[in-house]
Amino acid sequence: MELRADKFMKIKVINPNTSASMTEQIGATARSIASRETEIVAVNPDMGPVSIEGFYDEALSVIGVLDEIRKGEAQGTDGYVIACFGDPGLYAARELARGPVIGIAEAAMRTAVLLSSEFSIVTTLARTRIIAQHLVDRYGMNQFCRNIRSIDLPVLSIETDTKAQTAILEECYRAIKVDQVGAIVLGCGGMAHLAVQLTQELNVPVIDGVSAAVKLAEAVISLKLKTSKAGSYAFPIAKPYTGIFQSFSSSENP
Amino acid sequence: MELRADKFMKIKVINPNTSASMTEQIGATARSIASRETEIVAVNPDMGPVSIEGFYDEALSVIGVLDEIRKGEAQGTDGYVIACFGDPGLYAARELARGPVIGIAEAAMRTAVLLSSEFSIVTTLARTRIIAQHLVDRYGMNQFCRNIRSIDLPVLSIETDTKAQTAILEECYRAIKVDQVGAIVLGCGGMAHLAVQLTQELNVPVIDGVSAAVKLAEAVISLKLKTSKAGSYAFPIAKPYTGIFQSFSSSENP
Amino acid sequence: MELRADKFMKIKVINPNTSASMTEQIGATARSIASRETEIVAVNPDMGPVSIEGFYDEALSVIGVLDEIRKGEAQGTDGYVIACFGDPGLYAARELARGPVIGIAEAAMRTAVLLSSEFSIVTTLARTRIIAQHLVDRYGMNQFCRNIRSIDLPVLSIETDTKAQTAILEECYRAIKVDQVGAIVLGCGGMAHLAVQLTQELNVPVIDGVSAAVKLAEAVISLKLKTSKAGSYAFPIAKPYTGIFQSFSSSENP
Amino acid sequence: MELRADKFMKIKVINPNTSASMTEQIGATARSIASRETEIVAVNPDMGPVSIEGFYDEALSVIGVLDEIRKGEAQGTDGYVIACFGDPGLYAARELARGPVIGIAEAAMRTAVLLSSEFSIVTTLARTRIIAQHLVDRYGMNQFCRNIRSIDLPVLSIETDTKAQTAILEECYRAIKVDQVGAIVLGCGGMAHLAVQLTQELNVPVIDGVSAAVKLAEAVISLKLKTSKAGSYAFPIAKPYTGIFQSFSSSENP
Amino acid sequence: MELRADKFMKIKVINPNTSASMTEQIGATARSIASRETEIVAVNPDMGPVSIEGFYDEALSVIGVLDEIRKGEAQGTDGYVIACFGDPGLYAARELARGPVIGIAEAAMRTAVLLSSEFSIVTTLARTRIIAQHLVDRYGMNQFCRNIRSIDLPVLSIETDTKAQTAILEECYRAIKVDQVGAIVLGCGGMAHLAVQLTQELNVPVIDGVSAAVKLAEAVISLKLKTSKAGSYAFPIAKPYTGIFQSFSSSENP
Amino acid sequence: MELRADKFMKIKVINPNTSASMTEQIGATARSIASRETEIVAVNPDMGPVSIEGFYDEALSVIGVLDEIRKGEAQGTDGYVIACFGDPGLYAARELARGPVIGIAEAAMRTAVLLSSEFSIVTTLARTRIIAQHLVDRYGMNQFCRNIRSIDLPVLSIETDTKAQTAILEECYRAIKVDQVGAIVLGCGGMAHLAVQLTQELNVPVIDGVSAAVKLAEAVISLKLKTSKAGSYAFPIAKPYTGIFQSFSSSENP
Repeated sequence: MELRADKFMKIKVINPNTSASMTEQIGATARSIASRETEIVAVNPDMGPVSIEGFYDEALSVIGVLDEIRKGEAQGTDGYVIACFGDPGLYAARELARGPVIGIAEAAMRTAVLLSSEFSIVTTLARTRIIAQHLVDRYGMNQFCRNIRSIDLPVLSIETDTKAQTAILEECYRAIKVDQVGAIVLGCGGMAHLAVQLTQELNVPVIDGVSAAVKLAEAVISLKLKTSKAGSYAFPIAKPYTGIFQSFSSSENP
Repeated sequence: MELRADKFMKIKVINPNTSASMTEQIGATARSIASRETEIVAVNPDMGPVSIEGFYDEALSVIGVLDEIRKGEAQGTDGYVIACFGDPGLYAARELARGPVIGIAEAAMRTAVLLSSEFSIVTTLARTRIIAQHLVDRYGMNQFCRNIRSIDLPVLSIETDTKAQTAILEECYRAIKVDQVGAIVLGCGGMAHLAVQLTQELNVPVIDGVSAAVKLAEAVISLKLKTSKAGSYAFPIAKPYTGIFQSFSSSENP
Repeated sequence: MELRADKFMKIKVINPNTSASMTEQIGATARSIASRETEIVAVNPDMGPVSIEGFYDEALSVIGVLDEIRKGEAQGTDGYVIACFGDPGLYAARELARGPVIGIAEAAMRTAVLLSSEFSIVTTLARTRIIAQHLVDRYGMNQFCRNIRSIDLPVLSIETDTKAQTAILEECYRAIKVDQVGAIVLGCGGMAHLAVQLTQELNVPVIDGVSAAVKLAEAVISLKLKTSKAGSYAFPIAKPYTGIFQSFSSSENP
Repeated sequence: MELRADKFMKIKVINPNTSASMTEQIGATARSIASRETEIVAVNPDMGPVSIEGFYDEALSVIGVLDEIRKGEAQGTDGYVIACFGDPGLYAARELARGPVIGIAEAAMRTAVLLSSEFSIVTTLARTRIIAQHLVDRYGMNQFCRNIRSIDLPVLSIETDTKAQTAILEECYRAIKVDQVGAIVLGCGGMAHLAVQLTQELNVPVIDGVSAAVKLAEAVISLKLKTSKAGSYAFPIAKPYTGIFQSFSSSENP
Repeated sequence: MELRADKFMKIKVINPNTSASMTEQIGATARSIASRETEIVAVNPDMGPVSIEGFYDEALSVIGVLDEIRKGEAQGTDGYVIACFGDPGLYAARELARGPVIGIAEAAMRTAVLLSSEFSIVTTLARTRIIAQHLVDRYGMNQFCRNIRSIDLPVLSIETDTKAQTAILEECYRAIKVDQVGAIVLGCGGMAHLAVQLTQELNVPVIDGVSAAVKLAEAVISLKLKTSKAGSYAFPIAKPYTGIFQSFSSSENP
Repeated sequence: MELRADKFMKIKVINPNTSASMTEQIGATARSIASRETEIVAVNPDMGPVSIEGFYDEALSVIGVLDEIRKGEAQGTDGYVIACFGDPGLYAARELARGPVIGIAEAAMRTAVLLSSEFSIVTTLARTRIIAQHLVDRYGMNQFCRNIRSIDLPVLSIETDTKAQTAILEECYRAIKVDQVGAIVLGCGGMAHLAVQLTQELNVPVIDGVSAAVKLAEAVISLKLKTSKAGSYAFPIAKPYTGIFQSFSSSENP
């Protein structure tokens, strides 16, 4: 285990769902790619859905993400990665955080366009394609994203089910052949560990957002740039929160 | 108090913040505009922020909105209105609900374009303009929305502070004169009660989203159309939720 | 026959083509969906094409639509529906009318997006798809409309020809399966009577613009909102018109 | 007067309003710019508004435009120019015509972008700016058009009123200085005769759509290209027209 | 050979690649379509790639194009055509030139939309489709261009290889049938000589950019309009150029 | 001076103009921000313009950039930065290079949107704003970029002229106040050394593309991702180049 003394920056990688095994896998991927000077803290909230497969799951995951950001701020975290392809709570997290907060969908897409003029996304359930499409629109990626493909298998099947992994490979091949793209964006945090092998097998860049986001976070932190507090991402205004969210009151914010 | 026996449809108007006085005002506006055959149930969640003035507040309000939708489904609600201009939780709510769920931002904008070729939005704090802008983008309203103006005063000031009401009037005048628009969209649920008077004073349609959303909900319910369960708004997949969200598990959904 | 005394609002549904049987069918659909308090006046102009299947037909139908609006204004009409999917003469009609004027294409599309994140349009002749596409662009619906499909059969065949009705059903199935949309928009006023049955058969919202427009018109009238006369939809400027259009001079406008 | 024998092509320039003096002026401009081998036939319909200053006027002008196209087809016309900046009836006219039909708005904008990376439009009444904006959208000109300015004086004032001409000059100066554009598009057929002098005075290209459209029509005719009859601009389908439009039946079309 | 005395305007058609046989063919096409009063000077640079099949080739061709523009300015050239479908160096050329500079891609696309509501492009190698796509975006043509098809054969094969010509014909047929477009844009200067025959064979307008650009250049020159020197296309600022580009210094510009 | 032995990656920062002093400054900025494990090679071509202030200058700089890329490939370079805000030759460079090639404009804009919901660009001469605008369009940044401001002073004045530096500061203040953005993108490679101080002074992220691009290049190289050779950025096809570009023939490419 690495000692904190050697580390110049601490990046918290938040898996927004509550599946610890996926958090481990995401953490392992993050550590494998992080600079030696970076401490990766991989966590998942203790509240929320075991996997995120729709708008409802996503909404229920946001509170946990924000809770982890809040804790992170108290722990001197330099930057954050939100490790679910819907980038849940991204803008709210940016209000809370001093340092950069990077979503894996935005990280993956913004990395893909540096390497190929067009890409396709390969995601899990068909019903989640709309979440990816909304992000493609939001991030100005319509000129670059040719297609959003799905294997139509659940998120949690990727870890264990070789059928799912085969389906991902096949869908990637179809993207290259049919969509004629030069790069693939993996549309699920649970696919993080597959990117290296897929890149070799397919001979095109296959981009995992977790890895990409860790490197982007490191980059921004090295640039000594922080989330802008002028305007849209200013700290939340101090005010009462009621019920189960009492402790979320932003009154203690700087 | 009206009896249910006279009512053909029940519409739940959810104020996503926890300010009861605002809920009352919103409910009063909704009842004043609803058909005689419509029962309006105006509520606010018992958890969340007292007002919504940024992405963080908005994120914290979504759970309460979904909680009210879930309860509403058990109560035979025919349709829902989400009465905050950021339309928090709209797509997640649509997954939960059988009937239509209408956000007041989308209702107001979609109504405005029926009456004027262009409109401007007048909202509260400057920092929330970006939330409105994201919705303008998302709803395909860029060709219609000329400007998003703010009075830069807090949401809760509108209820009591005549200064805020004067500021709204002045900003509306500026929109008509400078932006040269033929209609105004009020960018906050807390402005609902001002629309009728502003319309008279300014002699252009001033659209309050609460009223517009109630009428749209009635319209869709009368059309016997429901939220599509084929695709993106299918019921949430049954799965475990942990922590404070255990009770949010969608396992009991049809 | 209902008495005017019971009615609070009068909505004129204008079938822009001159086929009386289609007008009757459209009128029947409109009445079946209208509030008990709404008087539906279904008419067609006494000039123009028997069906609208291209830009030329559409252009020739506009005068008749405007003639009916003008007459409607003299008859104390509260709102109007233009019951052809090209929304012919919509903006000109808004200049003439005090109350709202709703096109069935805009009504159908704006209703569809309340119920499904994406829809496809099913229309008649392939050559008219471009008219629908222009409206999709104009109304900011490109993010929502996945496809414009055609059965490539004439408008007037829908009424009588079961082959046409079968073709519509099949094209709807293809939209759901291939385009993977959660809702269908019927792309012709002559399909109005098919929506209820198709919705049941396909188990997704199938939206008929006539019904949707009647309900939207009722909604806007209930909101006591009128077409904005500030700017683009101001009353036509009084000036001489010559030839067969002498009587169209707007000099008598308020 | 020139003899037909010397002419290789006949272009009909249709002023969609019924003001003969404006037709003369437009015809003079067209002739001054046309190739020696081109016969210019400048006409205006004998029905419709004396000037076009809104959607209603525009709608009423379309029939006259189509009537002139129909006559033109019988007279062996090679191409057409629709000489009003709203391009009224353009797509319907293309269905009727064998040769090219060019609108002056599209001609002016498509010419401007060959000479400057950005342009502004200067038009007459403020209320007609929306018509220009719709065309900017429709023609894909949003990346090029920085502003749509108006002198807010009536169309017919341009001919005689030096105040109007001064206002145009001033608005052009403002476009160059404030919008920082390198070219001006004149937003009214009635401004045709001013372009040459304005170009000299302002030292930037000032584009008159009448002249531009005549040259584009000549260009397309020389290319031996005709309006495509495959698809959207196919000849109108033969069918009965009733009332004052009986004679508009397209039954005699090829 | 025609005498200069008869000519009113001189247009230089620059084939950006160094294949003299293609220059000849392009020149022949240009001359066949030019007005009798136009002198066509068809050239290719004496530096650069023999064909342009990617971004690198394109970049290497730009210098040669600019060199020919510079020489053209010294020779009293009235206008220029850049005869490669990527329009290489277009904006730089406009800075150098007094008269209009027309790219064949923009000329072809802007001509196509005058004749059909939608078109497809047929180009050579699949890898060059992205260049066409970038121009479609840049020129605001996304609403009009349905597809960019490629025969996936090299540029230089078109001249001699009947297989390539057959492939072009087949791809055009597919565009009409599958994309359902009413016009084809030929996506390579080397296809210029095929347009007339393809138009006849396919019975839809098949637009060659070389011909279209020559006619557009003639049109703009006749309009006495020049490249705007206010703003983006102002003459290059005089400054030192080093190395092999010393002679490209713009210091001698007016 | 650092020894190569300590370095894991070599990044070549190419200043596309020929001003050695600017290259030094850019190199110093790059080195100050690079990881200790990165070797920065800062160069400028020995051919081309001393500064880039328009499309012509830009075109003339591309060859030098490509020449440096080609040399870099022979020297085992891992990645490249093109250090001029127009990103000249970016796509051509990607065809040549195995590793990533990052333009400073894309790097700066893609970094800015991680930290603020909107940004403005501050550039040098007004005439170059159009180059930035084209990149904003190309990179899908229209939703994020509120304004492109210029100090209207030459590129080379920034190095030495305190007036220029004051003008930059003032324009940044205006961007924050008038455009209401939360971040500034510096629109010129020559401003690289000003970012740190401006960030402190303005208290918002001021992004210098050189620094951002170095960190992005490091990130992508660490991810072991390379420029995709499937499709648009495939190596140039081997073919003869003539004249001064003979040595640019890509025949020796892998």
